[in-house]
Amino acid sequence: MSASATTRLNDVDIEAVAGLAGKIQEAPDVAATKWSARVNWQGGFRSAASVREFAPIASDEPAALGGTDTGPNPVEQVLAALGNCLAVGYAANATAAGIEIRDISIELEGDLDLHTFLGLAPDGNAGYDSISVKVHIDSDAPTADIEALHQKVVGTSPVGHTLQRPVPVKIDLA
Amino acid sequence: MSASATTRLNDVDIEAVAGLAGKIQEAPDVAATKWSARVNWQGGFRSAASVREFAPIASDEPAALGGTDTGPNPVEQVLAALGNCLAVGYAANATAAGIEIRDISIELEGDLDLHTFLGLAPDGNAGYDSISVKVHIDSDAPTADIEALHQKVVGTSPVGHTLQRPVPVKIDLA
Repeated sequence: MSASATTRLNDVDIEAVAGLAGKIQEAPDVAATKWSARVNWQGGFRSAASVREFAPIASDEPAALGGTDTGPNPVEQVLAALGNCLAVGYAANATAAGIEIRDISIELEGDLDLHTFLGLAPDGNAGYDSISVKVHIDSDAPTADIEALHQKVVGTSPVGHTLQRPVPVKIDLA
Repeated sequence: MSASATTRLNDVDIEAVAGLAGKIQEAPDVAATKWSARVNWQGGFRSAASVREFAPIASDEPAALGGTDTGPNPVEQVLAALGNCLAVGYAANATAAGIEIRDISIELEGDLDLHTFLGLAPDGNAGYDSISVKVHIDSDAPTADIEALHQKVVGTSPVGHTLQRPVPVKIDLA
């Protein structure tokens, strides 16, 4: 397989990923990335989250939670972010391993008890109690290779780790 | 203040929120909610996350990470979800406390080291090491009331708790 064919596998620019890894090995500080977003409230439970120059991500709550149901709610957005992150992980690691992928689809589900958010259990967990994900990978690669790919992705997912580990979150009034 | 004026404060339907809390007190199982999303890979590092009937949330990576930079990346989406969640929290709790809010804007930033995602530190943390949030609230309410509001929101945020606590995430090949 030629370098250019490798570059095109799964439409992933694996040279860019390898180049970045190389740069980081020479200068570890390159790996220290900062990401940001800004959110503007729009009345009621509606808000818009802006990232760089992209169209804002609209947010609202279902009517049963007092919203006007004009967009995914924030906890649904967390599942979306996890699924999108896993997709990048499968695409990147499959390409690095020379595995051609025809399709990936991911179903995510999370269980969340509303008592704490609604002030009915002040010391309880307002967040997800658990999240479960089912990944469908369409590929001619041997099952063992897909299983190894899966283990690698699960073990190195930025959003997966963010959810599975306690992250210090500092929230201050400006 | 009449009930209908209360209902309209901050454009929040606080009666719906109170009604839900009442229902949950009568039937605690009502609080056990399930949320879901599905993600479809679109080639390269592009994917789309669908929630209910809403337009999908597009995801990509910057060129430096091998992507085609057509949308926020998954870790930026996590910050967006946290900011959107806090906005709901301020709106809901301010309204319940009779505090009128003119505006809320929220800036979020997170630090993430790429070594683990890129396979350069297999047992490290691929996720956020820390997240910091600055909240601007425009209101004529006394500072002490805004501070109390802030503490309540921070202590009951579903996405805040999801990030700050370890969540069991089960990821399986279908």
